[in-house]
Amino acid sequence: MEIIRSAGEMQSHAEKIRSSGKRIGVVPTMGYFHEGHTSLIRIARERCDVVVTTIFVNPAQFGTGEDFEQYPRDFERDKALAEEGGTDVIFAPDAEEMYPPGFGTFVVPEDGASILEGQVRPSHFRGVVTVVVKLFHLTKPHIAVFGQKDAQQVFVVRRMIRDLNFDIDLVVAPTIREQDGLAKSSRNLYLTAAERAEAPLLYQALKEAESLAALGERKAEKIRAAVSEVLQRAKLATADYVAVVDPETFREVGELHPPLALVAVAVRFGSARLIDNILISVSSKG
Amino acid sequence: MEIIRSAGEMQSHAEKIRSSGKRIGVVPTMGYFHEGHTSLIRIARERCDVVVTTIFVNPAQFGTGEDFEQYPRDFERDKALAEEGGTDVIFAPDAEEMYPPGFGTFVVPEDGASILEGQVRPSHFRGVVTVVVKLFHLTKPHIAVFGQKDAQQVFVVRRMIRDLNFDIDLVVAPTIREQDGLAKSSRNLYLTAAERAEAPLLYQALKEAESLAALGERKAEKIRAAVSEVLQRAKLATADYVAVVDPETFREVGELHPPLALVAVAVRFGSARLIDNILISVSSKG
Repeated sequence: MEIIRSAGEMQSHAEKIRSSGKRIGVVPTMGYFHEGHTSLIRIARERCDVVVTTIFVNPAQFGTGEDFEQYPRDFERDKALAEEGGTDVIFAPDAEEMYPPGFGTFVVPEDGASILEGQVRPSHFRGVVTVVVKLFHLTKPHIAVFGQKDAQQVFVVRRMIRDLNFDIDLVVAPTIREQDGLAKSSRNLYLTAAERAEAPLLYQALKEAESLAALGERKAEKIRAAVSEVLQRAKLATADYVAVVDPETFREVGELHPPLALVAVAVRFGSARLIDNILISVSSKG
Repeated sequence: MEIIRSAGEMQSHAEKIRSSGKRIGVVPTMGYFHEGHTSLIRIARERCDVVVTTIFVNPAQFGTGEDFEQYPRDFERDKALAEEGGTDVIFAPDAEEMYPPGFGTFVVPEDGASILEGQVRPSHFRGVVTVVVKLFHLTKPHIAVFGQKDAQQVFVVRRMIRDLNFDIDLVVAPTIREQDGLAKSSRNLYLTAAERAEAPLLYQALKEAESLAALGERKAEKIRAAVSEVLQRAKLATADYVAVVDPETFREVGELHPPLALVAVAVRFGSARLIDNILISVSSKG
């Protein structure tokens, strides 16, 4: 496994790989790997000749007062896990390499990027999409693997790939969960033991939405109310939002429509902010 | 010479060319060719195996009330001139192909894009840079050729290439002029005979700036005043701006500094809006 820090070196390496006819898969990450990340790496491994895992805690996607400084980092552990998952190249640039002085071009997603995460974290998706474009140009992938846990990120990245005509297949991998249902996240580290005990309520709330929809409930308001009710059992948490959206547009819907609805939640436990979501199949007969 | 209208077809064709080890040069244009355009095509021809000329009047870079509808178009003539200049592929999509319903991702240049053209034409450079990114992804070039006449466009595109890590060499071609100095432009077509007679004053004004700098003048205010004085001789025109900027940052400067200063003007003759500029070498001793 190779470790590359320089953007120029990454790019010329990627160009060589492509020219030799090999397929490149990229897994963009912020590091501090858990099984969610290693599942993405394994998916890229199955589908490509060369797997590039990028590790970059991207300052542009953190707002003022967010957890950029304290975001957990453990490069040695990540290195071992990336290699175990089948990574060929780790690209781990520093912030100066990615945003040199005079940087002044951003990729900006519009509709669908200003609600939910975009409302709570203004300019977050601008930072995400900008760094993804840069990483795509540096690693020249045929496919890119992202996790469904960050559903709105998947939406803005998918639309960006289409809008800007990137010749890249987006592969979306299912959320990996703890046994009690809590979605794996680097930010789970911030939870106290008491908070951790309550955290599975996020997924329970989402499963409640799924059950209601399976029973024929189509009103988003009813679904949201049921999800909020479950979340309220978490005494140490406050909900940022509970939303029912069309996953194609990321607009909130009044009624669930076939084929799919997405229910997304964000919850704060002290300094930890957790997100989760569930895709719900909606059948055409009510 | 091939003519391609479909984005998908252009992209797979470009990928095939690249995979075969050939070098692609792209010349992005809005059509209605004059010698300025054909000079760009010739430059690409000299440096590449395959020349792709794109013809697309990009609605995203025109503001409300601008000349998008009346912008001149003559595809048959362009086709002949493109072929004569050595084009292998014309890519000429329609607006629906480039901006399908649901389009919602823009590439936005910041500092340096909101003055001069960006001030007079808000969101102009957002449209330019977005379509250039799309065209780069569709034509997969090794080099891209742009004209110095649109100096601020060259600035935002060069910075975008660097900021977003495109693996593309930007080649900037000198402005082609009529015998009397008027920069060739598709918009010269809008001039009445009387306006056309006054239009060479733009270049005369820029040459005046160059002479003053050669004589040792370093104060931008003095240069601007001299340029404005020449432009005032054009009785049918009103000046939009006269600016002295650092071509590296596109910020206005108080004093000319080595190695280069750029003097840029924009002038309105009735419905025609003409721009021009001159790069001035500034020696280190005053």
